Amino acid sequence: MVGSVVDVSLMDPCEKVEALPREFDPKEISCPITSEANGVVEENGKREIVLGRNVHTMCFTIDEPEADDEITGEKEAYMASVLARYRKSLVERTKHHLGYPYNLDFDYGALGQLQHFSINNLGDPFIESNYGVHSRQFEVGVLDWFARLWELEKDEYWGYITNCGTEGNLHGILVGREVFPDGILYASKESHYSVFKAARMYRMECVKVGTLISGEIDCADFADKLQLNKDKPAIINANIGTTVKGAVDDLDTVIKTLQENGFTDRFYIHCDGALFGLMMPFVKRAPKVTFKKPIGSVSVSGHKFVGCPMPCGVQITRLQHINALSRNVEYLASRDATIMGSRNGHAPIFLWYTLNRKRI
Amino acid sequence: MVGSVVDVSLMDPCEKVEALPREFDPKEISCPITSEANGVVEENGKREIVLGRNVHTMCFTIDEPEADDEITGEKEAYMASVLARYRKSLVERTKHHLGYPYNLDFDYGALGQLQHFSINNLGDPFIESNYGVHSRQFEVGVLDWFARLWELEKDEYWGYITNCGTEGNLHGILVGREVFPDGILYASKESHYSVFKAARMYRMECVKVGTLISGEIDCADFADKLQLNKDKPAIINANIGTTVKGAVDDLDTVIKTLQENGFTDRFYIHCDGALFGLMMPFVKRAPKVTFKKPIGSVSVSGHKFVGCPMPCGVQITRLQHINALSRNVEYLASRDATIMGSRNGHAPIFLWYTLNRKRI
Repeated sequence: MVGSVVDVSLMDPCEKVEALPREFDPKEISCPITSEANGVVEENGKREIVLGRNVHTMCFTIDEPEADDEITGEKEAYMASVLARYRKSLVERTKHHLGYPYNLDFDYGALGQLQHFSINNLGDPFIESNYGVHSRQFEVGVLDWFARLWELEKDEYWGYITNCGTEGNLHGILVGREVFPDGILYASKESHYSVFKAARMYRMECVKVGTLISGEIDCADFADKLQLNKDKPAIINANIGTTVKGAVDDLDTVIKTLQENGFTDRFYIHCDGALFGLMMPFVKRAPKVTFKKPIGSVSVSGHKFVGCPMPCGVQITRLQHINALSRNVEYLASRDATIMGSRNGHAPIFLWYTLNRKRI
Repeated sequence: MVGSVVDVSLMDPCEKVEALPREFDPKEISCPITSEANGVVEENGKREIVLGRNVHTMCFTIDEPEADDEITGEKEAYMASVLARYRKSLVERTKHHLGYPYNLDFDYGALGQLQHFSINNLGDPFIESNYGVHSRQFEVGVLDWFARLWELEKDEYWGYITNCGTEGNLHGILVGREVFPDGILYASKESHYSVFKAARMYRMECVKVGTLISGEIDCADFADKLQLNKDKPAIINANIGTTVKGAVDDLDTVIKTLQENGFTDRFYIHCDGALFGLMMPFVKRAPKVTFKKPIGSVSVSGHKFVGCPMPCGVQITRLQHINALSRNVEYLASRDATIMGSRNGHAPIFLWYTLNRKRI
C-alpha cells in the first residue's frame, strides 16, 4: 500500500501519530498535528491522501530570539539536544539502510577543513566566473575523468556536476529538444519519472514504449511507435539501469532500430545512467556506454556508487550540442548552459577525492 | 570587458596563462593548455570566446590507483597538499570577497557531526519517503518559518528547500504555467536570466517589460504590453531585488495595473526574492511581500543573507496551485511536485540552525 492513493475516509485517524518515528519523543513535537495537512489533496473532486508519514506533524520549529534577547544557555542546550538526537537517528537509519542503491560507506574526514566555505560554481564549469570561491579545478578534473570513461575527447565534450540524476535527465532531454525542436521523446515505461516530468515541463510530445519482462525497452514496440511518427525526429531516453529492475536498454539494438526505420541521423539519445552508468564500464561483458556510439549525452548519480553526503550527479554531452543551449550572461561573466546556475561547489571535491582513491 | 564576447582573433594568446591564479603553481597543472578549448563557441559562423579564465587549463586531474596498487603514502601526501593549497586559496578569496551578496560569515561548527551522513530529502517535503536518512523535520520547520514570514497559513502553503534561487524561479514560473497553460510570461528586462531561461525551457511566450531608471518595472509599459495580449492570462515575474541594481518591483502597482487592464483574476505572480526576499520584511517602510496580496509564489536564496556553505533557497507557493503539478510516484512512496526530486538534506539543517540563532 505504500505510495498508493487512498480515500481519506478509509484512513485510521491515528495512523499518522502511530507512524511517528520512535527516535523522536512526541513531547518534542512543536507543530500541531493537523490531520488533513498538506499530504491531503483534492483530485477529481475527491479528497485523497498519499500514505506515508506526514512530516508536518513532527518538524522542529524555528523560534528565533527577539531583538533584545541574548542567546541563552537553554536555547543552545535545546538545539544541541535536537542535533544530538537527530544524529543518533541518522546513525540508526544509516545502519539499517536498505532498498536504495546509495553508498553510505565513505570517509571524507580529510575534507572537513573545507566544509565552512561557501563554495559555489556559478554558471559554466569551463569558464571561471567572477565569484572566486569555487571548485572548478576539481569539477573539471572529475568531468575529464568521466569523459575519458565514456570515450569522448577533452575538446569535444561539455558537462557539469549536477545536483542529482534528475538534473542530468532534465539537461540531457533539454539538449535533445534544442537540437531537434520538433522531436518526439521516446522512453520505455520503466524509465524514471523525471523523464516524463521533463516531457511535461518542456512541452514535448512523449511516446511511452513497452518493455520486455526484464525491464529493458522492447525494440519491436519501439519500431512500431517510430513508424507512426516518421515525419518527426526521435529523442530517446535510454536507461542504463532502470529504477526498479536495474534493466539496461541495449544501445546497439536501439540504434539499429532507429536506422532500420529511416532515422539515420534524425535522432538524439540521452542515456540515463543514474543507477549503473558508473558501474557498467567496469563490468566484464556488460553492454558498453560510449560516445563512440551515436549518443548525445550520459548522466549518472554521484551519491549512489561513489557515495557523497548530498545528492549530486554528472552530466556529459557533446560540445557541439551545447551551443544550441548556451547564452551569454553578462553579470556572471560566463555563458551558462547549466540548468541551475548556482551549483554546490563541495560535490565536485567529494567526487574528486573518492575517484582518486578508489581502485578501479 | 569582463563577460563580453570578443572576436578570438583579438585575444592575446597568453592571456589565459597570465590569468592563472597565483596560488596555483603552474607546475601542478596536469591538463594541457588548450588555447581554444571549451570557452570558444561558434556563433553566426564567427569564432567567439567569453572572457574569463579558462578552467580547463588548471584543473586537478584524477589519477585513480590501478587494481593492484596500494594507496601509497605519496598519493595521500599529494592529495593532502592539493587540499591544503586549495584551502589556503579559499581563505584568501573569502577574505577578499566582494561584489556578490553572499554572507560568508557563518559558523556551522556544531553541525560538523552530521557532515558524513548521506542526507537526501527525496520528493515532497511533507510526505516522508521510504529513504530514512532525511532531514524533513528541519526542512518543514524552515518552511513553516518562511510561510509565517510571508503570511501564509500552515495548511495553505506548500514549498521546499531548493538548490538555489534559480530553482525557485524555475518552480514558480512552472506553477504559473500549469495554472494558466496559455499564459504569457511578463518580466522586466532587468530580471535575472533564469527567468528568460525558464520561458525558453517551458516554451512559454515571453514579453520583456521596460524598467525605470531605478531598475523597477515600468508599469506604464507593462500596461501597454498587457493591452496587446488581453486574450491571454498573465504570468508575472516580479523582482524583489534585481540582480544588478537591487530594484524592487512595486507589487501593489503591478497588481493595480493588471486589474485596470482587465486581468481581474487571470494572473499569477511569482516573486523572485533571491536577493531581498529575506531582508524586506525586516526593513521599516519597505514594500511588503505577503500572500495577503494575490501573489502565487515567492522564492529566496538561502546562501545570500542567511549564509550557507553551498547554494540553496526556499520556494513557497499556495497549496491550491500545487495539485496542477503533482504526480503520484509509486517508487518514492511520495508525490513529487519538486523540480529536482533528490534534494540536499544538509541545506535545511544549516538554515534551521542559523534562523534559530539570529536575532531578528
